[in-house]
Amino acid sequence: MTGRLNPNISVDCVVFGFDRDCLRVLLVEREIVFHGDTEKTVRDYKLPGSLVYNEELLKDAARRVLHDLTGIGGICLERYDVLDSLERMDNRVDRQWLEQTTGLSIERVVSVAFFGLVNLNDPLVSKVKDGARWMNLDETKQLPFDHSAIIERALAVLQQRLRVDATAFGLLPEKFTIAGLQQVFEVIGGEKLDSRNFRKKLKNFHFIVPLREKQRNVAHKPARLYSFDHKRFLQSRKSISFF
Amino acid sequence: MTGRLNPNISVDCVVFGFDRDCLRVLLVEREIVFHGDTEKTVRDYKLPGSLVYNEELLKDAARRVLHDLTGIGGICLERYDVLDSLERMDNRVDRQWLEQTTGLSIERVVSVAFFGLVNLNDPLVSKVKDGARWMNLDETKQLPFDHSAIIERALAVLQQRLRVDATAFGLLPEKFTIAGLQQVFEVIGGEKLDSRNFRKKLKNFHFIVPLREKQRNVAHKPARLYSFDHKRFLQSRKSISFF
Repeated sequence: MTGRLNPNISVDCVVFGFDRDCLRVLLVEREIVFHGDTEKTVRDYKLPGSLVYNEELLKDAARRVLHDLTGIGGICLERYDVLDSLERMDNRVDRQWLEQTTGLSIERVVSVAFFGLVNLNDPLVSKVKDGARWMNLDETKQLPFDHSAIIERALAVLQQRLRVDATAFGLLPEKFTIAGLQQVFEVIGGEKLDSRNFRKKLKNFHFIVPLREKQRNVAHKPARLYSFDHKRFLQSRKSISFF
Repeated sequence: MTGRLNPNISVDCVVFGFDRDCLRVLLVEREIVFHGDTEKTVRDYKLPGSLVYNEELLKDAARRVLHDLTGIGGICLERYDVLDSLERMDNRVDRQWLEQTTGLSIERVVSVAFFGLVNLNDPLVSKVKDGARWMNLDETKQLPFDHSAIIERALAVLQQRLRVDATAFGLLPEKFTIAGLQQVFEVIGGEKLDSRNFRKKLKNFHFIVPLREKQRNVAHKPARLYSFDHKRFLQSRKSISFF
């Protein structure tokens, strides 16, 4: 091993915010100062992330970094990937920023990625620190490092979950409409769904329970309300298990 | 960051070997020399693993380490965990061994864990290098570092997969008996299954297709043979998807 460096290790957090009709991602501003003939400052946005301390667990590092940089705490972060590409960073800008913020000359960083999902209608998460920003997913295509790719992979994991687990119901009130449920699938899934097919499919899912209640105080014809039965949901998933 | 060390990063490989009626794990011998009043050598077994080089991907590091230490190559390794406990290593023995093999004084190692599954009836994998050994799962309860825990977690992931994906069929010949399938579930699942309930459950799985053939050259009453229809299997999994 002697003479062959071992990579550094960092955490990056992809926090998705569900905002009724769009999906956002929490980013933080970074500032890089270039000292040349004339001093030049570049500002852009990146995912909240930083190097891991020697004495902390990865999930604690993720929570610390997210809280320090954005002010957000107490949300569920799940480890979903390890980013180890050899071309993760831009040689000029990213390396300069790392040196500026860590005081170290860093050759390579392997990053452990965490993701979370929050409802932006919850006032506890919608308000963030100065320098942090909820950015529309469409605006995250050209971020520094491999952060655009990290977000894409986190989104793919989230979408896969949404297809088969109870993620969608966590974003809905206890009593919801089928149109509301469909909207969650459309916003996170990133595509319009055919309402008739969607309703037909849901009919087979006995864990979506029709209530005797309808919406109130709505301008249009009030729609039926439904609730989610988690116990029945788990049973339905068990039916495809071999033992 | 200055002054606060960043952890080292390694890979560890848990390769399970399915051996008809038991499950084995591939381990390698390590030797630690203690220089005191009298020189003392300690030998034990651990998972194949090592520090990652700065210029290689994690999966390449896992393949390199597995091949170098055991002689086994060309098997599918999947990343399934990152081990970051602060008490992963024994201060005396493990640290001494790390220093001896790397020439570095190492404070902490975060390890990325990979797992694989092979059929030990395949002659390409049953034969390993000197120093490597296929050990019965029961004999891996007191390994160095957190390797016993790494194996337990890998086994839990494997067992979870086995419940819902096509892992079991990869260990069977193209034409198999229900008893043979049950044995795979029992060996990896780690518990006896009730044959009647098992057969009853399988009746709902149209991807397990009865053939017009029976076993030949067996001492007992020949049993019916079955095949696995992967396309139907995927369709059955899709039925629980929301969209």
